[in-house]
Amino acid sequence: MYEGAVQNLIDELGRLPGVGPKSAQRIAFHLLAAETADVHRLVNALVAVKERVRFCAVCGNIAEETQCRICRDPRRDDTVICVVEEPKDVVAIERTREFRGRYHVLGGAISPIEGVGPDDLRVKELMARLSEGRVTEVILATDPNLEGEATATYLARLLKPMGLKVTRLASGLPVGGDLEYADEVTLGRAFEGRRALDF
Amino acid sequence: MYEGAVQNLIDELGRLPGVGPKSAQRIAFHLLAAETADVHRLVNALVAVKERVRFCAVCGNIAEETQCRICRDPRRDDTVICVVEEPKDVVAIERTREFRGRYHVLGGAISPIEGVGPDDLRVKELMARLSEGRVTEVILATDPNLEGEATATYLARLLKPMGLKVTRLASGLPVGGDLEYADEVTLGRAFEGRRALDF
Repeated sequence: MYEGAVQNLIDELGRLPGVGPKSAQRIAFHLLAAETADVHRLVNALVAVKERVRFCAVCGNIAEETQCRICRDPRRDDTVICVVEEPKDVVAIERTREFRGRYHVLGGAISPIEGVGPDDLRVKELMARLSEGRVTEVILATDPNLEGEATATYLARLLKPMGLKVTRLASGLPVGGDLEYADEVTLGRAFEGRRALDF
Repeated sequence: MYEGAVQNLIDELGRLPGVGPKSAQRIAFHLLAAETADVHRLVNALVAVKERVRFCAVCGNIAEETQCRICRDPRRDDTVICVVEEPKDVVAIERTREFRGRYHVLGGAISPIEGVGPDDLRVKELMARLSEGRVTEVILATDPNLEGEATATYLARLLKPMGLKVTRLASGLPVGGDLEYADEVTLGRAFEGRRALDF
């Protein structure tokens, strides 16, 4: 045990995800030895995030104004909505530069084990956006795991009566991967989703 | 890239030791979703550490007053000083409850590669303490690695003319360890330091 303030900081750091007691101690001693200005930059960044960042009123992405950068951008295609679980998924998709439509962030995925049902996600908000009638395609880009698939299936059923085009991101072999190391499910999906090569 | 405040926090967190870009992102989103009160506890802990914690004027350990808890404790044995590299080494030794003397924290170890020489460590302060004449034994408890051994050798030579008992922590097999997994150097040291068993 350290003296009050240091132990207190170690305890607080140890509460962060992925930071164990040893890492917390290491970070605390790093900060103890660091310039006061560096620590204040970190403190200010923490305070600013809680003060300035909120969730976009339209899509649920993180934003510093009422709407996020993407919802404010008039050049984006209003007819396609890509549904994702978390704001970090938006960043991942933006990085591909493949998608120019709008997003809808659910804030998670359906997970009976963790007690997350459709009402805990931003599904109602999605339905409200779709009822405006401008959207023609909904891309379900939830994670390709149990919860993400369940969420996609749930949404697909919900959206079917609306007569929209509902698509799901392709599952298959990762580019640059090795066929022999792919798990059976992924390889099975890759077969299922095989495409004709046109010459 | 995220919007300003979030990206800024990710950058600041990514500067901490052992926190990569992915962990920084994970922690940032955790804090974004956390209660404001939780984030403020972390902020206060950070501010308190920089405001309240300093180094003990006597031994160089971390302290919240002029002297650390151990230097202030009148029950500790003034005749033995245990020399360690860092404040966390003090905590590790205290945990054993084997040592009731005083400490001296060097603030590192001699490392020509990192440009750390004896003048960068609290060696002068150690000599000043020893010159008071009360100390009869100095235990060199620097790390059993290259830098720690070099520091111990340097100090042993420096202290020799003072006629003190200078000891070094034993190297050997870790308790609960497995002989076949010990490296040659450790096993060699264990042979060197073998003790007679008295019945």
